[in-house]
Parts: sequence; C-alpha cells; structure tokens
Amino acid sequence: MSTAGAGKGLEGIVAANSGICWIDGDAGVLAYRGIDIHELAVNSNFEETTYLLWNGILPNELALREFTARLALSRSLDARIVDMLRTFPTTATPMEVLRTAVSALSFYDADEKDNSHDANVRKSYNITSQMAMLVAIYDRLRKGLEIIPPDRSLNHAANFLWMLNGVKPSETAVRTMDMALVLHADHELNASTFAARVIAATLSDVHSAITGAIGALKGPLHGGANEGVMRLLLTIDKLDADPVEYVRNMLAAKQKISGFGHRVYKTEDPRATHLREMSKQLGYDSGEPKWYEMSRAIELYINADKKLNANVDFYSASTYATLGIDIDLYTPIFAISRIAGWTAHVIEQLDDNRLIRPRAEYIGPAYPAHWVPMEERG
Amino acid sequence: MSTAGAGKGLEGIVAANSGICWIDGDAGVLAYRGIDIHELAVNSNFEETTYLLWNGILPNELALREFTARLALSRSLDARIVDMLRTFPTTATPMEVLRTAVSALSFYDADEKDNSHDANVRKSYNITSQMAMLVAIYDRLRKGLEIIPPDRSLNHAANFLWMLNGVKPSETAVRTMDMALVLHADHELNASTFAARVIAATLSDVHSAITGAIGALKGPLHGGANEGVMRLLLTIDKLDADPVEYVRNMLAAKQKISGFGHRVYKTEDPRATHLREMSKQLGYDSGEPKWYEMSRAIELYINADKKLNANVDFYSASTYATLGIDIDLYTPIFAISRIAGWTAHVIEQLDDNRLIRPRAEYIGPAYPAHWVPMEERG
Repeated sequence: MSTAGAGKGLEGIVAANSGICWIDGDAGVLAYRGIDIHELAVNSNFEETTYLLWNGILPNELALREFTARLALSRSLDARIVDMLRTFPTTATPMEVLRTAVSALSFYDADEKDNSHDANVRKSYNITSQMAMLVAIYDRLRKGLEIIPPDRSLNHAANFLWMLNGVKPSETAVRTMDMALVLHADHELNASTFAARVIAATLSDVHSAITGAIGALKGPLHGGANEGVMRLLLTIDKLDADPVEYVRNMLAAKQKISGFGHRVYKTEDPRATHLREMSKQLGYDSGEPKWYEMSRAIELYINADKKLNANVDFYSASTYATLGIDIDLYTPIFAISRIAGWTAHVIEQLDDNRLIRPRAEYIGPAYPAHWVPMEERG
Repeated sequence: MSTAGAGKGLEGIVAANSGICWIDGDAGVLAYRGIDIHELAVNSNFEETTYLLWNGILPNELALREFTARLALSRSLDARIVDMLRTFPTTATPMEVLRTAVSALSFYDADEKDNSHDANVRKSYNITSQMAMLVAIYDRLRKGLEIIPPDRSLNHAANFLWMLNGVKPSETAVRTMDMALVLHADHELNASTFAARVIAATLSDVHSAITGAIGALKGPLHGGANEGVMRLLLTIDKLDADPVEYVRNMLAAKQKISGFGHRVYKTEDPRATHLREMSKQLGYDSGEPKWYEMSRAIELYINADKKLNANVDFYSASTYATLGIDIDLYTPIFAISRIAGWTAHVIEQLDDNRLIRPRAEYIGPAYPAHWVPMEERG
C-alpha cells in the first residue's frame, strides 16, 4: 500500500480543486470568487452573493433581477412536507428537523434522479429557498403559532424574518440578517462542505449531500458553536457573574470556550470583524448592549490571555440575541446561509467528479489474527 | 498557507488512524480487526462480526449470547416513525426513505444530546436493529402489504427476511443473507464511512453521521452500483442479447459497467470470491442459474479484455435476484450491513476526536477581484 501520512484531521491537506472560495489564513483573507468578504459584507446581499458563488461572477442588473425573482418563486413547499413537520415532536431540535425535512424534500423533487448540471442548479434554487421556510415554519409550529405564508415581494433575508415572526421586520433587522447570510455563505472546505462533497462524489445527489452537510454543521466544533456562545452568555447573566472571572475559571478547569480559534485563521477571522460591529451597533441602537459588552470583555481577555481570536460564531450569538431570535435557531440560520456555498460546491464537484476515498493508517490487531471456534475463546 | 497536494479524491492519503479494518489492496486482503474476511465469511455471522467490529475481539459464548439478545431486543420502532413511513409517497426510493427515517429516529432517542462512548454504543444497537426494520416495513407499505412484527427468536438476517416477506425464510436464504451482511459490514475509509467520520468529527452525533453515510452509499460509484449491475442484467435478458456482445458494445460506446474495478484493490476483491460462489450455488440449487451464468460470462470477458476485476457489487446483484429481492432494495441491504462498520468508525472517531477539515487548491479568479457597482458591470 502506498499512502502518504496526513495526520488526523487532514490539516493542511488539499482534498479538491475549487474556484469558489479563497482563504489566506495567515493574512486573514476570505474571498468569494476572488472578491474580499469585506467588500461583499458592506455592498452585497444574499441573492447577489449566492449568484456569485454559483456562477463565478457578479450578476448584471437583469441577471440579478431574474435570479432574485426565481429564488422568490421557489418559496413553496409541497403540502406533504408541511404536514410531515406538523407530526414532528416539538422537542425535536430545529437542526434535527432541518436535516430530516431536507432529506424528505427529494421525495417530491421531479429532478431527484437527474444529476446533470442544470438539474443540480434547479435543485439548488429550491433547497436554498425552502430551507429558510422550513426553519421558520417549524419554529412557529412548535410554538403553536400559525404558519405565515411567504411574501415574494421581500428579499430572502426579509422573507425569512417575516415567516419567522409574522411581523414585517425593521430595515435594521433585514440588513443585519442579510449581512449575516453573506458572511456565512461559504468557507471553502469546512467540515460540512467537505462532507457534502464526499457524499456527492459517489454520484449520489444534491439532497443527500445537503442532508449530510446539515448533520455536520450541527456539531459544536462547527456551526453548533454559535449556540454554545449564547448559552455561556446566558449562564453568566443568570449568575450575575463577572464575564472575565467566569471565563478565567472555565479555562482553569480546562473547559473550552466556544467561538474562539479556527483551524485555518492565524489572525482575526475577517467575518468576526463585521459581526462584532453589527453586534455593537444593534446593541446600542436597541438600548440593550449587554450581550455585546459581555462578549467584548470575554474577547479582550481571551485575546490577551490565550492569544486566541474570536471566530465567526462568537459575535453572531450576541447579534442574533439582540434581534430576539431563539438560541436553537442560530445554527439553522448558519445553515440557511451556508446552503449557498454547499450547493456551489456540490455543483462544482459533480461537474468534474472523482470519488473521494482516502485510506486509514491501520493501528488494530496484527494481520493475520484468526477466527477460532467458540470453545477456544477466552 | 502550507498545504500538501493530494490530487483529487484523496487517493492514497491517510485521513485517520483506525484499528477496525485492514486492507492490502495489492495482495487482495481484507480483514476485520485482523481476521481475514475469508475466515469470517465461512465461520461467522452478522451478530458476531458486529461485536468484533465494535469491540475489537471475538465474543466468548456469554458475550455473544448477550449481544445477540440485546440486538434482538432493540427491534422496536417508535409508532410515530412507522406513522411517518405511512405518509411517504410510494414512489420514494428505499434509500431516500432510509436516509429520512434514520434522521427522524433521533427525535425519539433519549440519548440524542449525549455523545459519550456508552450513549454512542446504545444508539448503535438501536440504529443497527432499526435500519433493517425500516427497510422491510417501507417495502411492505409501498406494496400495500401488512407490516410484519419482528420475531425476536430469529437472528438479524432471518428476522430481516421474515419482516420483508412475511414467510419464514429457508435455511439457505438466511445463510446467504447472513454471509452477505458479514461481507459488506466494513471496508475501512470507503466514501460513506469517511463521510460519517467527517460529520461525527464536528462532535455532531451518531444519527447525523449515519444519515450522511446513507446518502453517500446511495451513489452509483459506491453502494448504488449493485442496483446498476442488476439493471444491466435485466436489460440484456429483456433484449435476449448475448451478454458479452452487449457489454462489448457498451464499452465501445465508452459506457461504464457497474461492478468492476476498485479504488483500493489491484487484485480480485476478496468479497467477490464469496459472492460469486453464493450466486452460483443459489442459482443452480434453485434451478435458475441464468443471472449467475450471465454474470460469469460478463466477468470473464471484462477480466480478459479490460483487466478489471469484479468487485463486491457485481455478484451481490445476481445473488439477491435469485433470492427474489427487489432491485431497489440491494443498496439498502448494503446499508443494513455497513451500519456495523459505520457505527464502529463513528464510535472510534468520537473516542479520540479531531475535526476533519482539509483545504482546497484554489483555481478561481485571482485575489483581489473587486465588488463593483451595478452600473460598472458588463
């Protein structure tokens, strides 16, 4: 067997060629299709960014209008999917529900057996629109609230908030959500995107790949970290503890603090820069800067003491909290953004596919051990 | 960025340390926990093999009795899961249904939020037992047949056939199914197992990992290939064509023949040896050697002409066909075997975890491209 050692976790190993996302972890650069995330964060929106990720270039005016309209038109769910959501126990977490419901979407997709580029793009429009709906609808169902029909005159971010809350969202809320969706939309071969590509590369299908990606994002070492951050802030608040003191004690007890450090970035995560600013502005504008201030104190302490930087998850927590969003929707919101990147990567993988099949370094009992009859076993 | 190139598909790259499965692709050796698959195929059964994969050693008599009993006791499904299956359209493929239903199992699993070793083992018993039930139950539901309750006095293979067909299976059928389950139970870092480990490594959970693995197995470059083989045999039979002639024409038209070649084996796939023998015996015993004979003719031709060997999928097709099993259950049967390995790998991953997060080689627009206002776009 000729194999190359990579150590656990494939750190620094190239697993695919991709034209979607560029990260320079040493310089703290993130770019979608070559365009710096700092430019996209302040100028773009989810529709334009998704177009960019899928097509490789910024849309012109007509293309963006068509794309936006098509995404809005895709805001419809088979009634049987909604009926299925109604049967789910209200104790199911939104991530479990999203994973299950996206898997079930394939039952009603006429393209299920078609893995052509065009069919994959059609599926991507549908899943991108429908995932946001699924999150909003399940949240209302579990709370015993009426389902809010989609409003196709709203953009993707605004429609999500509308279907979630049943009130027209403020301009600030829409702008915040839209920027969060842009910032989370892609991140090269993060674990969920990589899982999606591994699954797609067997020539399975888009629904299988996205279902697997949702499962990966759920983990606290990935998307699940933003919920972990908020749980920490809530605990500190409830105990009326000093945030720095509390975190110092956690670190002394070898506990991990969610939202710090990143496999790839050696600098500040460029997304954290924008989320910190959003969290701050929203906090002071709403007269409730508590979550921001608590977060900032923890960040400064961990920067200084552990030389660790806040990552994308750290300030998304206080941002969503200030918008009044339930904690267990933070990771689903990450998912309804990252679907833009997941689908871009699955389409790219299937356009020029090769099975992704690494090897393991065997550390088990030496070969040949032997099967022995029962009476000879210890 | 310091990265090592691996080329597409991670061929020959070590992505994990694992004590579960040893493959020597040059020598054609496959061993579970050091024991050669040839010894296990003729001596072991699914229960003993699963115990071996999970625990690293063969069970003694008491341990095997307890393991078998516990797996049999786990043959129960929450009524709400069965109710959900009833709502699925009968056009849904069994792999889509299995992926969706396993995802939904987590709703009713008290251990859902517990990622400890012991909880993962508990989940593994449940999922292993329940996946076989899900496949059998959905197949009966879609055919409008009554659900057959599990028979806990039967072993895993026999109970599956019982719940599928509603008649007590012959000894030959049970022995065939059991050997097929042993042969498919693990195969190191194949794409579905690797997907499961990538998902689990975010500290997500067993259900997420297995749901993703099912999605990966579905692809025709992986488990889905056994269905592809049977579709080919049926086409040839329907046309009353000469198998060798037909396959020669396919190859001339650059079409791929499912069931040949393997990323890892340079020799005959050791599992194919047993499946060929099963297919042959079953064929002649049942007086219907057609599928075996057709397969054998194709194999000899492709061996000689393309220097490609039959893999695990090639003779599982004719084997299952002779047992009277529907084509679109072949890959689900692969899944209800491979769950033994998937769970072993997920438990091993979570016992000593590191996030699996490779890098991509960026081939997109040079950085920095720039966001430009709409009026400046082409």
